[in-house]
Amino acid sequence: MTYCVGIMLDTGLVFASDSRTHAGVDNFARFCKMTVFERPGDRVLVLLSSGSLAGTQAVISLLKQRNERAEGATLWQAASMFDAAMLVSDAMRDVDRRDGEYLEETGFNASFIFGGQIAGGPPHLFRIYAEGNFIEASLETPYLQTGETKYGKPVIDWGITRATGLNDAAKCVLVSFDSTMRSNLSVGMPIDLICYQRNSLEVRMRRRFDAGDGYFARLGDEWSAGTREVFRRLPRLDW
Amino acid sequence: MTYCVGIMLDTGLVFASDSRTHAGVDNFARFCKMTVFERPGDRVLVLLSSGSLAGTQAVISLLKQRNERAEGATLWQAASMFDAAMLVSDAMRDVDRRDGEYLEETGFNASFIFGGQIAGGPPHLFRIYAEGNFIEASLETPYLQTGETKYGKPVIDWGITRATGLNDAAKCVLVSFDSTMRSNLSVGMPIDLICYQRNSLEVRMRRRFDAGDGYFARLGDEWSAGTREVFRRLPRLDW
Repeated sequence: MTYCVGIMLDTGLVFASDSRTHAGVDNFARFCKMTVFERPGDRVLVLLSSGSLAGTQAVISLLKQRNERAEGATLWQAASMFDAAMLVSDAMRDVDRRDGEYLEETGFNASFIFGGQIAGGPPHLFRIYAEGNFIEASLETPYLQTGETKYGKPVIDWGITRATGLNDAAKCVLVSFDSTMRSNLSVGMPIDLICYQRNSLEVRMRRRFDAGDGYFARLGDEWSAGTREVFRRLPRLDW
Repeated sequence: MTYCVGIMLDTGLVFASDSRTHAGVDNFARFCKMTVFERPGDRVLVLLSSGSLAGTQAVISLLKQRNERAEGATLWQAASMFDAAMLVSDAMRDVDRRDGEYLEETGFNASFIFGGQIAGGPPHLFRIYAEGNFIEASLETPYLQTGETKYGKPVIDWGITRATGLNDAAKCVLVSFDSTMRSNLSVGMPIDLICYQRNSLEVRMRRRFDAGDGYFARLGDEWSAGTREVFRRLPRLDW
């Protein structure tokens, strides 16, 4: 499995992904699921992958190769985030056309969270389904998740609105990952995190949290202690 | 779907269940999923149901009828909680023998959380699978869930150990239900809650929380405010 989150805030975007891939419990590995296409001053595009590794890697390789060869419409040329999302979708469908019929059991099952900003437009955040269609984060639902989403959802619901600052949102997302990894072996470190500041048009805040990371451990401990204290102070139930 | 939780504490047991049953989003209803067999001073047995309503109701009706008719071994006569759990299991297999072959698609899919105390023995807490075999809560894992378990799990992991008091555990369980119901329409009010005090051999703390319950609403609000404050105080991330 996988756990990826993208969040749209008034002040920017947060992206986070785990790094565990597996085919059964005795065959797991680490792969970074965060891909960044960045041209400072012009565009920042972030792609978080979930689903079959063969599928997601093929889509990313195709996008990169098209960028390098300047083949047809590329992510470097897309005039809007909507156009860019359609290029990701096109690449997915190209891979599906090539591989889909050979994948009898699962079909092409790669999907993505895709977001960023292109100079001249506002930030956008999409979730692109395996079929290549996509939805966009909204005022009502500012975040999108893929993979093992349930364990880590309530903490985001409690902690984040569009008005939340980038740093507080980052803490909340890390707690969401901590909660998920404590419950589910299919989601694992390292965690890749980007906080993108609106209109900066470059990635200034990026961190990788590997097993044993001091900050991540401290965050988990202080969150546990803090929530136990909140429980203690909650009003007592009259029977 | 359903959400049920049973927790084994040093000082007693906590049981909670939601009340929503459904067959598709346009066909849902309220049914209490908590059944209590109580003879004050002798035994308290609590059964939380999940799975097919026809299946769980048949098992409970069979257990009740056997109690009333004093037919064979009954829950009133079981000498230990282990014996009692086996009687629930036997009733499940009896229903499966009768109905299973007519349920081609799903089979018999009722399962239970079952716990309580019988005079002369300690409290026990079991999860009985649809097959009739069962597991028991332990020191390492003091709680058992069924149904839509993921959303509400982290909050129990943070908040509850065997040493947690009954009242604090009750608050934690209610927050766990609140988190689940905010994310999943298949779990719904009212919530039935029992806190059973070890060695009391009667149910002294039982509450039903229906939509609009003032305490439940206040709990959710104060929990949200409290956790946001914890996020604010968590150490800031250095990039």
